[in-house]
This record gives sequence, structure tokens and C-alpha cells, in this order.
Amino acid sequence: MDHIALYTDLYELTMAQGYFREGKADQRACFDYFYRTPPFSGGYVVFAGLATLLEILEDLHFDAASLEFLKEQGFDADFLARLSEFRFQAEIRSPPEGTLIFPYAPVLQVRGTLLEAQLVETLLLNLVNFQSLIATKASRMREVAGERLLVDFGLRRAHGFGGLHASRAAVVGGFDATSNVLAGMHYNIPLSGTLAHAWIQSFDREIDAFRTFAEHYGDASVLLVDTYDTLKSGVPNAITIAGELRARGHELKAIRLDSGDLAYLARRARKMLDDAGFPDVKIAASNNLDEHVIRSLLVDQQAPIDIFGVGTQLVTAYDDPALGGVYKLATLDEVPRIKLSDSLRKMTFPGDKQVFRIRDAEGQFYADAVALDHQTHVERIHHPHEPHKEVDISQLDQELLLQPVMQHGERIGTLHSAFEARAYCRQQLAQLPAEHRRFHNPHLYKVGLSTALRDQRDEAVARARKHLSDRPT
Amino acid sequence: MDHIALYTDLYELTMAQGYFREGKADQRACFDYFYRTPPFSGGYVVFAGLATLLEILEDLHFDAASLEFLKEQGFDADFLARLSEFRFQAEIRSPPEGTLIFPYAPVLQVRGTLLEAQLVETLLLNLVNFQSLIATKASRMREVAGERLLVDFGLRRAHGFGGLHASRAAVVGGFDATSNVLAGMHYNIPLSGTLAHAWIQSFDREIDAFRTFAEHYGDASVLLVDTYDTLKSGVPNAITIAGELRARGHELKAIRLDSGDLAYLARRARKMLDDAGFPDVKIAASNNLDEHVIRSLLVDQQAPIDIFGVGTQLVTAYDDPALGGVYKLATLDEVPRIKLSDSLRKMTFPGDKQVFRIRDAEGQFYADAVALDHQTHVERIHHPHEPHKEVDISQLDQELLLQPVMQHGERIGTLHSAFEARAYCRQQLAQLPAEHRRFHNPHLYKVGLSTALRDQRDEAVARARKHLSDRPT
Repeated sequence: MDHIALYTDLYELTMAQGYFREGKADQRACFDYFYRTPPFSGGYVVFAGLATLLEILEDLHFDAASLEFLKEQGFDADFLARLSEFRFQAEIRSPPEGTLIFPYAPVLQVRGTLLEAQLVETLLLNLVNFQSLIATKASRMREVAGERLLVDFGLRRAHGFGGLHASRAAVVGGFDATSNVLAGMHYNIPLSGTLAHAWIQSFDREIDAFRTFAEHYGDASVLLVDTYDTLKSGVPNAITIAGELRARGHELKAIRLDSGDLAYLARRARKMLDDAGFPDVKIAASNNLDEHVIRSLLVDQQAPIDIFGVGTQLVTAYDDPALGGVYKLATLDEVPRIKLSDSLRKMTFPGDKQVFRIRDAEGQFYADAVALDHQTHVERIHHPHEPHKEVDISQLDQELLLQPVMQHGERIGTLHSAFEARAYCRQQLAQLPAEHRRFHNPHLYKVGLSTALRDQRDEAVARARKHLSDRPT
Repeated sequence: MDHIALYTDLYELTMAQGYFREGKADQRACFDYFYRTPPFSGGYVVFAGLATLLEILEDLHFDAASLEFLKEQGFDADFLARLSEFRFQAEIRSPPEGTLIFPYAPVLQVRGTLLEAQLVETLLLNLVNFQSLIATKASRMREVAGERLLVDFGLRRAHGFGGLHASRAAVVGGFDATSNVLAGMHYNIPLSGTLAHAWIQSFDREIDAFRTFAEHYGDASVLLVDTYDTLKSGVPNAITIAGELRARGHELKAIRLDSGDLAYLARRARKMLDDAGFPDVKIAASNNLDEHVIRSLLVDQQAPIDIFGVGTQLVTAYDDPALGGVYKLATLDEVPRIKLSDSLRKMTFPGDKQVFRIRDAEGQFYADAVALDHQTHVERIHHPHEPHKEVDISQLDQELLLQPVMQHGERIGTLHSAFEARAYCRQQLAQLPAEHRRFHNPHLYKVGLSTALRDQRDEAVARARKHLSDRPT
């Protein structure tokens, strides 16, 4: 996207100018990204969007047109001169894309100057919130689809240019292919597509439309069978074409059902195909599918569907279309900073932190411990908002979740491709106990504070409250 | 977006290659865009996205990198040679942006070669579905906000790069300003922004943070008052600063509430400001607002809020995040084409068509008549799916909705800016009776077929069904 440094909220620039004028621009800051509530009433989020973010940050700059526009908006010449030289030079720490992340654990940290860390807030939130949301939705569909093919067909209902990253995130969460050609090109995702009703309608007869398509695309043909009547016309015509293909040494790949009762039609079509000697012709289904419909089709109704084309529900995360991740100042000039709130749950955890993933004796994920950055082992974790709840984790395996992925504004090592992140995500899900993965009332995954962090938080709260009571009235 | 010709579903290209090989690429086609169900259980959609679409179509082409990628995907050299010369040369007819549109009425028509009309399907659906969705959501918030300021704060929760068009569409639907700097630059939208908690946290005391901000931004200052305690700290400190500003000849613009009970806090803050002699300091509110919350705040709770900052619910269209608009072949080689379906409601209306907006005696919108293109007046409309329902409209005022907006691939006249579309939308809403605008169970707006179109549709259905029964079994 051109002028992407302006793809931000105005207040980031307003505050940046204020920091600059006050001589605070180069103070050392640490910001945390975290979320508070998992989407879809689920138990986890799949972390995604990191590669996109880092690629953009490496090249982030204010071009001449952007600076000119900011000048028209009233920004100072001195500040604009600083922006004209701006390059993102900070450190970023995070786990790899595909990692399962849990409420309140800071999973992306930006450490740099106050100016640069503040300026990237909106862009970071936009990219990471959205891709993590879609990857999470996709992972739920993968959970119920087993090894069946999942194809993203959502571009026409995606949110404008948001469709590019939706298709990438779908792969991170477990999808196999996309219809989105540009996403295929950018992210090396296999492309998939069949034909639309318009192709069928452009011929006088359905059989002619099928025959012509099959002549051109042979073994790759997937025939859409619901233009006139699925069982009376579409499937019989597809069987005719499958026979003609076979006579020429080819096999029809699949038929696609796109309306009506998918379970009923799939069973009937399967039997017609099998009876006609085409047990290997696959059945693809589309039309408003989500994880609940897919599970109902496969588990409750035993529908013989091999390929699911998922659109709207995937790329819009239809039933919960926003992940509310936030980005909060944790440290400035080596002083831990806190935001109080009328709501306890909106309070932040002050200071530079590390997150430990704790495993149980079977190697399954048991809890996350949020600790101070210098801690190397956590003895005990405390519930962030309920003081009497604590757990001893001293004997359990502890893994550091936050690792440097960018230093001095340059990526470290190679980033995961979408498919590498997908493989990592599947490994992660295999380590998450089923009670956290279920769709209805999943068991809450433990995220606690180390004793040292809890004490630091409580001290910061006390200091802030003292300021309040000291205020002259 | 670079390589935007590839921002499409693979099957558009697969079908285009098939048409090309079959010598059908240059057949004359007419495609219709329409939707079936209004979002948000509402009664209308605000048509938006046209300017974006036409700008992109005027420059649509396959660049070298795109052609190379398609070659790797197995497309033919002959077809790629055709694509390398591709320019969109078709005619497009539609009403202006901001028009209210209703279910089943075709409101965007593409007439050109089968190749070009097919190739733009996904892009057209992506852009028009999304912007119309967001403009519709925005219009509902405008409906309840009266003349109060509505500001889009949604970029951090927008769907990746979809945030650019979300901010534009919000204006079409009635918003006044945005925090999205890039959208402000592209679409000439006033920018708005305050400050974040990070600014407050970066100072040791809230009052210092306020004072410093006010020193730099004077009359433009909007102070965020909930970092520590809204009523005990934020509002009193804001009042102190308002006094200091006044002593220097300035007036504080507003305070912003971002958590807690907005109605209670707004009333208390208003009284504190008034009692301190600052009745003109405005109160801005944000935090998960939508049209229902805004109405509850203003109507049920009489909250003295002057400015609403709306984010997530607006830019994601949270409660119904997809508009299911479709794009269907209506005519090919001068022959009307139909798509039957197992579902009556998914059947299409064949042939080149015009849409008439019918007004009642008071000049209010009464119905839309979908007619054949050569009709100049419609006597009678028939319910599309219930044969016995018809209405005489011969004596009512009839206005043509579809006008050429692009010919030979070039825009005709000047397109509406976002703010012109916004003004048009407000005019339109004033002409739609309240029973179609209400949020709960709105009265269904009539969309009917002219007798001639109904007959043509019925004949096409009969022909298609005859083909079905003729099929040798």
C-alpha cells in the first residue's frame, strides 16, 4: 500500500509531535501487545500477521507526498524534518506465527524510542489483530474438517483490500488453498477454483457447458452442478462427462454443490457417482459454511464431502469479526508504567516482561507465566485479578515465549512462510488439551503473574493511587 | 494495490480462458449486481464503492509480473497475450453513491464482452459489497446521532488494508471525520484525534500530561480523562487546564470518556464542567459504541454527549459483517439468461433491465420497479416470488435509477466525492418512510417486476425446465 506510514490514527502523529517538542521522543519505551478475550467464545488465539508487520516496518518511511499532506494538516516543519528521516530502528520480540496465545499475556513487545514505538501502534494493531482473528477462525474449521481439503473462497465478501491478508491468515490457521490469485502470488498459496453459474448459463445446455469445460481442463475439472437442478440435471450430466473424460484417459476431479441441503445432496450424488463407476470423483461443497456447519455435516450427518469451500464466515470471522488486541506502554526511561482503569480488567502490567509457557508432566500446555524480563525461572504464578488464586509451577517445564524477531529495525533470521506457520500451528494445537479447544464453554487457560511482577504491579498501583489522593482539591 | 488485476478469484481467469479458447470471449454480455437481504435486519442498503471501483477499472491491466505468475500457473501463451492487451472497455450503469437500494433490484450493470465482464466480477463484488455494508452501518448511527459529531476511530480493528475503504464508506453513510490519516489524504476527509493513554502514562502526573498537551495544541485539545480515575482525577485536572488555557485566551475543546458507565460519567462531568464555568467544553465518548448504544445514551439516558468516536462496530459492521451482493449473467448475445435454483429466491431475472424508483403522492419512496430496458413507464409491478401479489403504479411518479457512469471503459462526468455521496444519502433517507428505516422489524420495501419482465422471466424458466425434461436419461 502506498504512503503506508499514514495508515495510522492521527493521534499517533499528534502525540509523536508532542513527544518531539518536549524532548521526550528519544526516551526508551517498551510497549506490549496483548488481548483480553478470545474470539468466538473460544479458548485461544492463533498468533498471525508477524511476517506482514515486519516486512512493512523494515521499509517504513514518510514519502514526500505524505510529508506534504501532514504539512497541510498543520504539523511543524521541525517535526516533519524528523519524520523525513524516520526509519523504524526498534527491537521486537514475539513467538513465531502459529503460536497459540492466551488472554493478558503480552506476546509482542516493541522496545525502542518513544517516538517510533508510538508511531507504529495503529499499524501493528491493524495487522496483528486481523490476521490473528482469521487464523483463529480457520483453525476451528481445520479442527472439525480432519484431513479434508479446506479452500478459501471468500474474496468477494472480504473487507475490501483486507482480503489479501485474510487469505494468508486462513493458511496459517490450517487452510490448504485459496481462490485469491493475488494472495497465491504473494504468499505462495496453492490456487483453487472451479467455475461459476455464468459459465453454465453462457451455453444453451448444461451438458455443453460441462463438456466444453472438461475438454479444456481435463483432470482438473470441478463441475458446478446446481445451476438448473442438482440431482435431475447437474449430477447426471457430470456423470456423462466423467464417462467421456475416462474414454480419453482422464478422470473427473470433482463436482461442487453450492445450494440446497448439502448433506442430502452429497449422499445422493455420492451414490449416483459410485453406482456409475466413479467412486474417486470427489464432492466439494460450498454455501455459507462455518465450523459448526462443517461439523454437523461430517459428524451428525455423515455427509460424504471431501472438499469444503469456505467464504464469508472465514474471511469476515462472521460471528465475531474483531479481535480486541491492544498496545500499552509498559516501561518508559526504565520506569515501569501503569494504566489504572475504572475496570480492573483494563489495568495494565507495568515493566519489561517475559512470558514462559509452562507444560505439564505429559508435555501439554498447562499455563503461561508473565514474569519480569530478568527472571529465568518462575516458582509460582498469581491470578492477575484475583489475589488469593496462585499455583506452584516450580517443577514444571518452562519455555521462553518472547524471542527477538527484529533488532535495530532489521528482521532476525528467516520468517515463517504461511505454510510453515500453519505446520507450527498444528503442532501447537496438538499440545493444547482438548478442554481448551472445545467450542462450547472451553476451560479457561491459566495465565498468571510471577510473584515479582505481581509485586511490581501492586507497587505501581499504590504509587498511582497515592498521586490521586495527593491531588489538591 | 499493486497487481490488482490478480485481486480476483482464480475461476474468473479459468472461465475467461475457456471463453477465449471457445471463441466466446467477445460475445456481448450483461451482468447484474444485486443483493437479497439487507444487513443488520434493516430495511435498506446505502449504495457505496462506485468511485473506488471505477477508478480501478479505468486503469485495470495485467502487468508483467502478473502475467508471469499466471504463466507459472499453467495459463496458455495465447490467452496471456490477450490479457497483456486487456483494458476494461465496457459500459457500467448505476445510480449515484449514497442511493438507497433494495433487495433484488439490479443496481449495477456491466455491459461489455463476456471476457471483460466476467473478469471484473470478484473485484466489483469485493469493493461494492464492503463499502455498501459500512455505509449502511454508518447511516444507522447517523440516524440516531442527529447533528452530533460522528468520528471513525476504527482503523486498529479494521480488517487489514480494508480500513482504507471503511473510512471512506463511513463518510458516505453520514460520518463527519476519521482518525485514519491515509483515508483523510485519499478522500479529503477531515481528520480527528485526541491522545492515548500512553501520552498520559509518559508523564509522572496526569496534570502534567494534560498541561503539556494543551500548551502544544491549545484550542484543539481533547483530553482523555480515564487513565487513573475519571471523576476524581481526569475531569478535575481537565478543568484546571481549561482555566489555564482561558487565562491565555484559549478554550479547551473537549474531554473524552473511554471507559466506565458513559451516561453516568457524562452527566457528572457535564455538571462539573458547567459548575466550573466551562459550559462550552464538549464531551466526547468512545468505547464499543454502535447505533443501539448511541440511541440508548441519547434517548433513554439523556446523556450530554456531543461527539461519538466509533470504532470496531462501524468498520467491521460487527453484528452483520458481510453484505451478500451477487453478480449474475442476465443477457448473452442478446439472449436473456437465467439461473434456476433449488431455492426460488436464488433464481435470477433474465435480460437487460432498467430500475424505476416509484414515489407516492407525497414524493416519498414507495417501490422499485424492475423492468425491461426498453420500457419507459411501468403500469403494474408483480411480486418476484409470489405470483398473486401485484400493484398498479401507473399514476405514480417514476424515476430511472440506472444511468451510464462508465462508457468504453471511461468514467462519464465527475464522480461524487465521499462528502457529496453523504449529502445525497441524507436526501435519500429523508425520502424513505420511517417504517422502512426503523431498526426492529422494518416494513419491507416493495420491489416488483414489470409485467413484461415477469413474462420474460417465466418464459425463460419454462424453456430451462423443458431442457431438463428433454434430457435423455
